[in-house]
Amino acid sequence: MAERADAELGQLLELLAGDPRHAYRVGITGPPGCGKSTLTMQLIRELRAANQSVAVIAVDPSSPFSHGALLGDRVRMTEVAADDDVFIRSMATRGALGGLSASVADAADIFDAAGFNYLLLESVGVGQNELDIAQATDTVLLVQTPESGDDVQMTKAGIMEIADIFVLNKDDREGGDAVHAALAEMLHVRGQSPSPHSWVTPIVRTIALQSAGIAALCGAISEHRMFQERSHMLEARRVRRNLERVRHLVQSHVERELWSEERLRQLERELGAVGAAKPSVRRIAAHVLAEFWRCAGSGREFP
Amino acid sequence: MAERADAELGQLLELLAGDPRHAYRVGITGPPGCGKSTLTMQLIRELRAANQSVAVIAVDPSSPFSHGALLGDRVRMTEVAADDDVFIRSMATRGALGGLSASVADAADIFDAAGFNYLLLESVGVGQNELDIAQATDTVLLVQTPESGDDVQMTKAGIMEIADIFVLNKDDREGGDAVHAALAEMLHVRGQSPSPHSWVTPIVRTIALQSAGIAALCGAISEHRMFQERSHMLEARRVRRNLERVRHLVQSHVERELWSEERLRQLERELGAVGAAKPSVRRIAAHVLAEFWRCAGSGREFP
Repeated sequence: MAERADAELGQLLELLAGDPRHAYRVGITGPPGCGKSTLTMQLIRELRAANQSVAVIAVDPSSPFSHGALLGDRVRMTEVAADDDVFIRSMATRGALGGLSASVADAADIFDAAGFNYLLLESVGVGQNELDIAQATDTVLLVQTPESGDDVQMTKAGIMEIADIFVLNKDDREGGDAVHAALAEMLHVRGQSPSPHSWVTPIVRTIALQSAGIAALCGAISEHRMFQERSHMLEARRVRRNLERVRHLVQSHVERELWSEERLRQLERELGAVGAAKPSVRRIAAHVLAEFWRCAGSGREFP
Repeated sequence: MAERADAELGQLLELLAGDPRHAYRVGITGPPGCGKSTLTMQLIRELRAANQSVAVIAVDPSSPFSHGALLGDRVRMTEVAADDDVFIRSMATRGALGGLSASVADAADIFDAAGFNYLLLESVGVGQNELDIAQATDTVLLVQTPESGDDVQMTKAGIMEIADIFVLNKDDREGGDAVHAALAEMLHVRGQSPSPHSWVTPIVRTIALQSAGIAALCGAISEHRMFQERSHMLEARRVRRNLERVRHLVQSHVERELWSEERLRQLERELGAVGAAKPSVRRIAAHVLAEFWRCAGSGREFP
């Protein structure tokens, strides 16, 4: 229902909203081929071993979760597939920017109400995706590999900043130390120093295929969670998230009403009219706006 | 005034809008270092030799125009600087997406009314810029160099499509033939065939610093202009451009009114309230929307 944005979805979410239980949301992102899916699978095992229930949303179009392949025989998927306390779901990326985050956020609300302890959100790091993931989660794992090197991924503006924890995966390959040093240097330049009031982004080295470093990674997630709870940053983060969701819902509704097909057709006619002296685009804009205010809100129901 | 979006700007543009003269707008974009500024300078000379008046807007932050350096002694800027029929202006890129295009479009309207025959719009090809340039002009020159090779620039989705004319500049350097072949191949794959109804994107080879190929480039611009006039595509392009401008003006106005500081503060308070069972984000969104419709349009004047 969340994926299709069903008509009844609003009512359903309304019914579920009363329940204050929250799944702790962990985002897992990074470039293609960095091992996000294997890491996700290992996190599921580790969390299950601690008796935590886990929901997974894979919004990575290249994720094996999305193809039903489920990592083949390398990691035994079957052991979690039969587990009632694990729910894995892949969601298709939609065309519209923000469309994905809306349906993922709705699905996450449903998992909240279903009482899952953890929600893992796996998404490939391209374009807007990383920022969407950061928006939607409580802890962001940004996965790199020894091959990352001086990759654009390392310097892409605004991306490194979303990491709450760096994961240096595939650490059995050559180059891990160099990438680790580069990450540490970057964190140092950013001026992070240990203090009770600021989170020092750790770098956790893992070899997901060999289950190495996974306990340390879960430990880092727990620490980040506790840090945010102590400092009330978790609550602030959730408020900010819901603020963005409200903004998005309201704005897309207003835009739909503002740019109705009828209004666009009329506007095109007006702008294309030949002959007479044309009014300025500002005058036309003022006219459109006046017309919009006159009819505003008379139309559709809120979805 | 256009750059600062002065309060009187709307009135001024209104006064100027009656005049139907249009400067023909040529966009010049491409990666940093491809020679856009030198090409622009050569185009000015060529157009002046044909007795055409020329306005230039450089929105390239790295443009020598923006730094007053004006190409030093390589191209004798002084010969155009003293010319009354040449007006050169650099405009700062603003933070807000779309903010640049709005002020550039306003400035272009002023140049239209001032009676310039040509308007050259130079902008470095990064991020959203190329699309803004395509939006704002009648003919787009996409500049490449022999060094472009298999550069991302060549494959970046949606960018090649904006080119009305490819310019292969710095063609005295090694690799020109390979890049030319790659471009031709790409155009072939795209399925362009000569027909009176479709424009076949030409590839013009230039060495701007030596004034080589500039006459051919001006010829290609004229041909594209005539093709668009004959097929009425120029008019359609200008209608589409003004449609986007109206949309942008209206929408930014609505957004400003929708997300007033007061409303955001109130929303934050509501979402942050502790204790009581919280309504769903959808219910809050519906509430914000109802409130917006109730007060809509009662506020500010259209700028």
